[in-house]
Amino acid sequence: MSEAVARPTLEAVAARAGVSRATVSRVVNGEAGVREALAAKVRRAVEELGYVPNRAARSLVTRRHDAVAVVIAEPETRVFADPFFALQLRGISKELTAHDVQLVLLLTEGRADHARVGRYLSGGHVDGALVFSLHLDDPLPGLVQGAGVPTVFGGRPGWAGGADARYVDCDNRGGARAAVRHLAGLGRTRIAHITGALDQTSAVDRLEGFRDVLPSPDARLVAEGDFSPAGGELAMRHLLDRCPDLDAVFAANDLSAAGALRVLRAAGRRVPDDVAVVGFDDMLPVAEQADPPLTTVRQDIEEMGRLMAAMLLRGRPRGSGRHPETDDADETASVVLPTELVRRESA
Amino acid sequence: MSEAVARPTLEAVAARAGVSRATVSRVVNGEAGVREALAAKVRRAVEELGYVPNRAARSLVTRRHDAVAVVIAEPETRVFADPFFALQLRGISKELTAHDVQLVLLLTEGRADHARVGRYLSGGHVDGALVFSLHLDDPLPGLVQGAGVPTVFGGRPGWAGGADARYVDCDNRGGARAAVRHLAGLGRTRIAHITGALDQTSAVDRLEGFRDVLPSPDARLVAEGDFSPAGGELAMRHLLDRCPDLDAVFAANDLSAAGALRVLRAAGRRVPDDVAVVGFDDMLPVAEQADPPLTTVRQDIEEMGRLMAAMLLRGRPRGSGRHPETDDADETASVVLPTELVRRESA
Repeated sequence: MSEAVARPTLEAVAARAGVSRATVSRVVNGEAGVREALAAKVRRAVEELGYVPNRAARSLVTRRHDAVAVVIAEPETRVFADPFFALQLRGISKELTAHDVQLVLLLTEGRADHARVGRYLSGGHVDGALVFSLHLDDPLPGLVQGAGVPTVFGGRPGWAGGADARYVDCDNRGGARAAVRHLAGLGRTRIAHITGALDQTSAVDRLEGFRDVLPSPDARLVAEGDFSPAGGELAMRHLLDRCPDLDAVFAANDLSAAGALRVLRAAGRRVPDDVAVVGFDDMLPVAEQADPPLTTVRQDIEEMGRLMAAMLLRGRPRGSGRHPETDDADETASVVLPTELVRRESA
Repeated sequence: MSEAVARPTLEAVAARAGVSRATVSRVVNGEAGVREALAAKVRRAVEELGYVPNRAARSLVTRRHDAVAVVIAEPETRVFADPFFALQLRGISKELTAHDVQLVLLLTEGRADHARVGRYLSGGHVDGALVFSLHLDDPLPGLVQGAGVPTVFGGRPGWAGGADARYVDCDNRGGARAAVRHLAGLGRTRIAHITGALDQTSAVDRLEGFRDVLPSPDARLVAEGDFSPAGGELAMRHLLDRCPDLDAVFAANDLSAAGALRVLRAAGRRVPDDVAVVGFDDMLPVAEQADPPLTTVRQDIEEMGRLMAAMLLRGRPRGSGRHPETDDADETASVVLPTELVRRESA
C-alpha cells in the first residue's frame, strides 16, 4: 500500500502538449478562451500522463469537495414517482446552491446497490451526506456511518445505534393525533387507519398517534399500506371488506388517501357524508386536486430538506471562512418540525 | 503546489484508535461486524488524522471510481416535472447498475451553477459523464470537455466544436416528417406547428422535418413553444388567434400537445374532427391519457438512456477486465435511433 503517490505535474502536461502552464490550467479548470485545437492537445497530454487536476489533490488533503451527497433509500423509479422526494430535494438544492455546494444525488435500483453507495461515500468525493426514507432493516445507516462522512438523516432514526444520529423530522405522532381527533370531533365512531410502510419510523409514529386517541381500536380497522396510491387502494378494499360500517379513514399520507378515495367512490360511498377521509403531508397538487379536495395534516417537506442541508453545512470542518456559526452546538441539534391540520372537503 | 502528498496511513489510524488494522479496514470499508464503540473510535481517529481510505488513493492513481455523472442541463424543478428525464434516467440507471457503476446525478438550480458542475467533473470523482438537454448557448459542453472526462451526450450536439462529440439521439427530423405527412394524408391543408425550445437541436430538427413536408408554410402557422404544457397552451392560443381556420397541429412533444388539446377544447374545437393533433415522444401515460388519446411519434427514451450509458462504459480505459469489447470502435460511434408514428384518436 503506497501512501505517498507521486503524480505527474502541471508542468509535465504543459511540456507534453507544447503549451504554457496557464493554458493547461485554463483547460483543466474548464475556463473559456482556449482554442479547441490547443485544448484537445492538452486533454490528450492529460490523458496520456494520467494527470489529476490540482483541485482533486487539494481536496484529498483538505477533505473539502464542496459537494454533498443525497441518498434516498428507494429505487430510482420511486424517487421519480413520489413527489415527496422532489419537494425535499427542492429544499436541499436551494440551500446547497446558496452556499455554492454541489448536490450529488446517488441513485440506485434498490437495496442491493447500497453497498456501492457506501463505497462512493467512503471514496472521498463528498463533504457529507443527507440520507432519507430509511427502512428499519436497511444496512445503509451502518454503511453511511462507516464511511466516516458527516451525515444528517431525514426522519427519526429507528435503527440500533442511531441514538446519536442528527436528523430532521416532523411531529408525525402529534399530527396523527390531530387528524384522528378531528375525525372523532365530527362524531365518527368507526375510524380506520391506512398505515404507511411499517418498516419506516414515520409510519410507526403515525400509527402510534392514531392509537394515542383510540387506545383500543377494532384491529380490523387498521390496514397496512406502503405510502403509495396502489397501497392505499388495496388497504381501502380490505377495510371495506372487513368493516363495511366504517365511517372515517385516516390515511398515513396523501398519496394513499388518494387511492382510498378512488376505492370509496367506486364502492358508492360518498365522501365525507358516508366516510370522512384525512391524509398526511399536504402534498400539492395531490391534496388539492383530490376528489373531493383532501383534509390533511400539513408538514413542510421542502423546509425539512432545507434544514437538513443547513444543518450539515453548519457542521462542516472549520476554516472555510464561510460558516462562522460552526461552533454553535445548538444549531446542529436534531429538529422536529410542527404539523398542522388543513381542512378541505373530505373531512 | 505540492504534487506528491504524504498521507496518514491505515497503521497510524489503528494506533491512534487502539485497534487492529483489520478493524480500521472494516470500518472504513463500511463492513459489518464492528461494535459501535470501536467503530466510533476509528471514525474519530480517521477524522483527527485526516485519513483517506485507500480506495480514494487508488482511484486517484487508476482514475477508476466506478461512478458516472449524469448532468441534465435544466433546473432540478424541471428535471422532476418532466417525465422525459425520469425515463432517460431509468435506462441509464439499469445499465450502470448492471455493471455495478454508481449513478451520480448532479442537480442544479440553473445555468449559473454549471461552472460548479464543471469543477466537480474535473475533481476526479467520476469515470465519465452523460450530459443531456443541452441548450445552444450553454457553457456546459466546453466545461465538460475541459474536465477531461469521457462524455456521451444525449441529443445531437449543436455547439461549435461539437463535431467529434459522441452522442445518442433519435431521428427527430424523420419523425417530424412522418407526423406532418400523416396530417396531410388526412386531407388537412392548414397544418400548424408548435415548436420545442429552439435553442435545442431536437426542436430545430423537428421544425426542419415540418418544413421538409411543407416547404413554404404560412409563417403564422408556426408558433414557438418550450416543450412544456404551459408553453403548448400559450402557443395554441396564439395560433388560434392568428389562424382561426387551422385544421391540424403538429406539436414538438406530447407535453405541449397536451397543453394544446386543453386550449382547443376550451375554444370549442373538436379533436380530431375540427383540428387533428399529433405529438412527439409517445410519453406514457401523457399520450394515452390525453383527451382524446394522442397520435404521436414514438421514440424509445429509456433505450436512449441505456445506450448512452453502454457507450460510455465501453469507452472506459482498458484493463478493467469487464469490457472486452473496448477496442471495437464501431460500438462507441454515435447512434441515431429510428422513430415510429403511433396512431390513436387525435389524428
